[in-house]
Parts: sequence; structure tokens; C-alpha cells
Amino acid sequence: MSLTENHPRRRGRPPKRDADDHETRDVLLRAGVVALTEKGFSATGIDEVLKSVGVPKGSFYHFFASKEAFGAELIALYADYFIRKLDQFLLDDSLTPLQRIDAFCQDAERGMARFGFRRGCLVGNLGQEMNALPNAFRAQLTDVLIDWQARTERCLEAAKSAGEIPKSTDCAGVAAFFWIGWEGAVLRAKLERRAEPLHIFAHHFRAMVTI
Amino acid sequence: MSLTENHPRRRGRPPKRDADDHETRDVLLRAGVVALTEKGFSATGIDEVLKSVGVPKGSFYHFFASKEAFGAELIALYADYFIRKLDQFLLDDSLTPLQRIDAFCQDAERGMARFGFRRGCLVGNLGQEMNALPNAFRAQLTDVLIDWQARTERCLEAAKSAGEIPKSTDCAGVAAFFWIGWEGAVLRAKLERRAEPLHIFAHHFRAMVTI
Repeated sequence: MSLTENHPRRRGRPPKRDADDHETRDVLLRAGVVALTEKGFSATGIDEVLKSVGVPKGSFYHFFASKEAFGAELIALYADYFIRKLDQFLLDDSLTPLQRIDAFCQDAERGMARFGFRRGCLVGNLGQEMNALPNAFRAQLTDVLIDWQARTERCLEAAKSAGEIPKSTDCAGVAAFFWIGWEGAVLRAKLERRAEPLHIFAHHFRAMVTI
Repeated sequence: MSLTENHPRRRGRPPKRDADDHETRDVLLRAGVVALTEKGFSATGIDEVLKSVGVPKGSFYHFFASKEAFGAELIALYADYFIRKLDQFLLDDSLTPLQRIDAFCQDAERGMARFGFRRGCLVGNLGQEMNALPNAFRAQLTDVLIDWQARTERCLEAAKSAGEIPKSTDCAGVAAFFWIGWEGAVLRAKLERRAEPLHIFAHHFRAMVTI
């Protein structure tokens, strides 16, 4: 099923089976997120997503206008999920600010290990293949990363106030540096199917900010 | 043309037109490298590579056993090209060791700018989409990165001898950190179509190693 295929689509939902429809739509979105974290957008076929959750072929366009619209929803869904995860650590008052960043990195490692380092970051995957993607994804993906950076910057400012990092630290720059490098670490961990690249990045990042 | 298609293939080269064949093969390899640096493996169709250089459809299997064999050659070709580029900077005795790393980063930025930040790193692209690729690529891609790290480690050891970085620096670890993060920076520069992520990574990396 390609991006350019044109299927007749019924507008709006049918009057009955709204609850079922809603559930099926959620199931498709969850399966889509898994596919995109594992393989990215280009290598993911809509047919295979439908098949993986037992939804009949041909019903896709009842739920989504196009593969592009589906992709845009998946990015938004993943961003929401990830913000909750990030805040769970970066706003944890029981830890010092730098410990919160460490805790995030350790949780991300556990998350990758749980799926045998097969699943990476949806945003990193789609960022890498951006030249083959609908252009509207570019701003959407960039905005997600800028949001993650802003949350990390606030945590670094807290680290500065707590005396964990030097007063001279450029927290915005270091937060940007963290996300640039962390996406590289996730990529490499997925390539090598092991945690080592995440450790190396987190270790040197931590050593860098505290000096 | 998919990975699984099975085409009859003539073994060896025909007795005549060897020079032409050699040239066509080179043209296909160069076009393949461009496609893989721009879009990765999954989003690249063999038909489109053939079309981009005016080679008739159907002649692909005269030159390569499969899309996988073609991909493996492209990785090897890119690795050779990149080693020459890397050594051009990292072995440049007219610069101090850290200046050599800076010069490499600046050249990489010029290289990306020349193509409007559309072309990234072939190894990073394929690493990101590894779950959708032939498994034999995993070791091949990892070995390429390990080789680049070893060259960078030797340059960092030279920086240590020259007193540019502390005697206590873990040069192997820092070289690994550099390549993990640099691939992230190239990914992000391609996503945002601008040099800023490369600058941010290079600037903070440089600040980190010299402290």
C-alpha cells in the first residue's frame, strides 16, 4: 500500500460501533508505533501493520486519510508518551537534577533491553530517513526534539542551582548536545544490539557536565 | 524490484565489452552510494538507481547477485572513501591533533552543505534501519565504525602526547563517544537541513576533551 494510492474513504464514523472503532483505531496506532520504532517509516508496510493486529486489509482508510496522516498521528502519540516518561524522571524531586538525567538514561536502557535492542527512538528513526518522508514530518520531528531539549535544559538549570554543574554552563547548548548525542547512542545500540553505546555516551556526558 | 525476486543470472563477465561493463558497474555503485546517503536502503529502489544513471532495467543482475550483495559492496565502497577522507585530516602533520579533528568536522559540514544537507552518513543511515536490513550488514557496519574510532583514538593519543588534552584521558572511550555523538549530529543536521547540530556537537566535544 503506497502513499500515493487513492482509496475511496467514508467521511466520519458510522453511527454504530463507535466504541469498537475507537478500540481498533487505538490498536492500529499502537502497532504503528512499534513498527516505526523498529524499522522506521519507509520499511513499514500498512498491510503488515494491519495483519499484525488482525485488522482486515482495506479498513485502514476508514480510520486514517493516508499513510502520511497515520505517520503524523504516530509521531504525536509517541511524543506524548515520551514526554510523560521524560517528566517522570526529570521532575522527580527525590533525586538530584543530575541523578534524574542518569535515571532517564538507565530507564531508556532497560526499555531497549526489554525488546532485545530492536526498538529505537521513533523520532530518531524518522529523522534519519527524512529525505524519503513527507516534508511535513520535518517540522513535527524537530519540534519534538526541541521540546525534549527544553525539558532537559530546565533540569540542567536546576543542577546549576543545586551546585552540581558550574555556574558558567550553557544549559541550552548542553541540552541540545545531549539530545544530538543521545539519538546517536540509541542508533548505535540498535545497530549493535547491546547497551554499551548508551553507557559510553551517558558516562562521558556526565563526566563532561560535572567538570 | 524486491530483495526476494529471483532473476536468472549469467555467471562471470561476457568475453567482450569488459571495459564498458566495468564502467557501468562503477556508475551503478556511485549512484547507489548517493541513494543510500540520502534515503537509506529500505527507501531506495533498484529500479530508480538504474533509471537515475540510464542503465536499462533488467541488467542489474548481470552486475550484482542481489540487492543485498549490492548493499554490501556499497558499504565497503563508502568505508574506503571515508577512510581516505578521515586520514586526509587526522594524519595532517601541518595541524595539531585537535585541529585535525576540527578540520574533519568542518570538512564534513562543507560536504553536507554542498548537497543542501540532504546526504548524511551511509553507515548511520543503514545503522538506523538495521532491523529492516539483511543481518550480515550488522557486523559490516559495526566494523566500519570501530575502524573510524581507532583512527580517532590514535589522533587523541597524539593530542595527549602534544599536551592538548589531559594525560588521564581515556582516548578509546572518548573516540567511541565522538562517533556515537557525531552520527547523531549528522542525523539531526539532515533532519533540520542545517549545520547547527554539527556545530553544537563539535563545539561541546572540543570543550569537553580540552578541560
